[in-house]
Amino acid sequence: MGNSTAVSPFAPEKLARLAPIDGVRFATAEAGIRYKGRTDLMVAVMDEGTVAAGVLTQSKTCSAPVVLCRENLAKSGKARILVVNSGNANAFTGMKGREAVEATVSAAAAAAGCKPAEVYVSSTGVIGEPMDAGKFTHLLAGLAKKAKANAFEAAARAIMTTDTYPKVATAKVDLGDGVKITINGICKGAGMIAPDMATMLCYIFTDAALAQKPLQALVSEHVETTFNCMTIDGDTSTSDTCLVFATGAAKARGQEPITRKSDKRLAAFGEALKKVMRDLAIQIAKDGEGLSKFVTFEITGAESFKAARTIARACGNSPILKTAIAGEDPNWGRVVMAVGKSGEAADRDKLTIWFGPYCVARDGERAAEYDEKTVAQYMKGREIVIRADVGVGKASATVWTCDLTHDYVSINADYRS
Amino acid sequence: MGNSTAVSPFAPEKLARLAPIDGVRFATAEAGIRYKGRTDLMVAVMDEGTVAAGVLTQSKTCSAPVVLCRENLAKSGKARILVVNSGNANAFTGMKGREAVEATVSAAAAAAGCKPAEVYVSSTGVIGEPMDAGKFTHLLAGLAKKAKANAFEAAARAIMTTDTYPKVATAKVDLGDGVKITINGICKGAGMIAPDMATMLCYIFTDAALAQKPLQALVSEHVETTFNCMTIDGDTSTSDTCLVFATGAAKARGQEPITRKSDKRLAAFGEALKKVMRDLAIQIAKDGEGLSKFVTFEITGAESFKAARTIARACGNSPILKTAIAGEDPNWGRVVMAVGKSGEAADRDKLTIWFGPYCVARDGERAAEYDEKTVAQYMKGREIVIRADVGVGKASATVWTCDLTHDYVSINADYRS
Repeated sequence: MGNSTAVSPFAPEKLARLAPIDGVRFATAEAGIRYKGRTDLMVAVMDEGTVAAGVLTQSKTCSAPVVLCRENLAKSGKARILVVNSGNANAFTGMKGREAVEATVSAAAAAAGCKPAEVYVSSTGVIGEPMDAGKFTHLLAGLAKKAKANAFEAAARAIMTTDTYPKVATAKVDLGDGVKITINGICKGAGMIAPDMATMLCYIFTDAALAQKPLQALVSEHVETTFNCMTIDGDTSTSDTCLVFATGAAKARGQEPITRKSDKRLAAFGEALKKVMRDLAIQIAKDGEGLSKFVTFEITGAESFKAARTIARACGNSPILKTAIAGEDPNWGRVVMAVGKSGEAADRDKLTIWFGPYCVARDGERAAEYDEKTVAQYMKGREIVIRADVGVGKASATVWTCDLTHDYVSINADYRS
Repeated sequence: MGNSTAVSPFAPEKLARLAPIDGVRFATAEAGIRYKGRTDLMVAVMDEGTVAAGVLTQSKTCSAPVVLCRENLAKSGKARILVVNSGNANAFTGMKGREAVEATVSAAAAAAGCKPAEVYVSSTGVIGEPMDAGKFTHLLAGLAKKAKANAFEAAARAIMTTDTYPKVATAKVDLGDGVKITINGICKGAGMIAPDMATMLCYIFTDAALAQKPLQALVSEHVETTFNCMTIDGDTSTSDTCLVFATGAAKARGQEPITRKSDKRLAAFGEALKKVMRDLAIQIAKDGEGLSKFVTFEITGAESFKAARTIARACGNSPILKTAIAGEDPNWGRVVMAVGKSGEAADRDKLTIWFGPYCVARDGERAAEYDEKTVAQYMKGREIVIRADVGVGKASATVWTCDLTHDYVSINADYRS
């Protein structure tokens, strides 16, 4: 966990209160997997009829639990129980890792009274350390029994690693038939993208009644502009997981189930879902390891959304730009560099750059009105917005990240010691 | 220049002595472009008949001098004078930047008595600051006149920015006809890849007599396994330049000129050229900003050289892996992560990793013989070699880099102040 115990300057003064969602219940425990004196095991039990959708890491060295989640999304698309442990990623653990997942699935299926294909598992923590599932499989039956609906915050705390605060988000939406449905999400990050200690894990729950296919389509669509637009250090985890569970409980309150992708109510639901995903993505960036500033890169005038995002990510992953921001230096030349290195189309002679409200460069050279002192003052703020128009098209993208500080180096230089 | 004044622990105790090369002469001056009390202008004058080849940055926001070099390589492929300034990159300076280059070209062509198409210009330093070529154009005629052959070290010093030592390399080769030809190179780096302060610039001179086309082919080929296998922070400069000049003076000593790509003597010349390029690339990595360790990533078992290099670069550009190395933590899980995120084919269950002579992971899990203490002891060394076999093919690549330290953050947080 490194030596830094400072809490992110962006930790919320008060966590949002998440109302219970019919059909899902949580329990947590101190299983002593790696950490002492804190919860490190979380179980979510879901009613029959819950559908699951998700997006998982594209890493070629993905963890054993990621393989299981991918298989079960394809196999059943249904969910009855989710088991998450922190402290050990169960990644790069070979046959032993697969056996640990199998043991977890057996015990979880027995605890929830469901099929193995309805079990989802995540693990986050150190890579390559063999994981002893025996530390917690015996606890699952008891946890499933005592699980309760009103426990989102406890669940969010149990999945933390180097996070300095739990991350929760909520949205309510009326799909048009007068029934309010709720979408609650919890996640952890801290380095998206800092797999030994972080790994992005996100679980979203809703009482909406909707089929798996339209749900999966929405999750796949909105992850592109939310979690995939957030970076701490550009390092893709072996375990990144975003799962969305819909219990369908709102049907009992009169919501007509959504079964087709053409259903017009999906637009409102999708917007609410995106809001929760975006909120959580920003919270992860705001708890980036060692950060002192929250940074937003907005790229406009690009050929496509993907091109704009690639350019914004090149900014968000540039060590030399992020250290300048940590040093409160309005070093916009480094934005020019990042735009140039991204490989995407950009017109150097039309490139225009703003730091907050201040135009620092216009049409390929320093803006006439540029005043270093004014912009240096802006850089002292805690939230920095840098915008660049690359002058070749109409597409745009926004990427959220943080600065690169001495604390990042300290945290990661001695994580395991 | 940041506040760090420490010299790289890899600075050579004694610089290699570079013998003069017939047909090329150097002069330097203190033009006061940005720095005080040091040389910041370098001129190389070359005899008629000198051919030039080169490779330039792929940045979409490349500098005005890079545009000129690219044009002149295509237009004439001949060279009579090279002008390099440090302290200002003349990048992202719009029309004024182009005018500064034109003024430099005019003055340089007059000084050397050559065509504008035979002039090459490089600038390195801050981006976006308008450059006043008037600070040095009046000096060029005098410099061209007093230029002398025995001045490689002075030339290497004049092009430095945050480099902590000048970088020179030399090789001699007999092309088979009994005539020894010489290849001398100088370069600067410090962040390849840290454009505000660094930018890789490399100039290689040889007395070999060979035509532009075969020379260009060799430069393009060998840059792939030398400079393109070196990274400091993954940030591509707006100004990266590698130019090779062949004066042809060895012809007078009996070397039969090489005119075709099929000439068998090119193999020996190419090997010697590659040796100089590789030597300089490694020297740049060994002077990476704030480094404490020189790190080599060797990837084997990949599908192709490019795939292997992409994986090795993913390791070499990973902030979280490079901070762990700075912390002397044998955190091999982060190598697993970097291999996984590269996007190239890798067989997770065959992946095998070595830290120095120690196998830490084999066939997708921790090696049975892994002993943390032994490997932690290895990490205390100054030169770290990390090898990974990804188990899908027979290709390999080596990438040279350095660790990511507190000093890197310090240097880059306040470069311009």
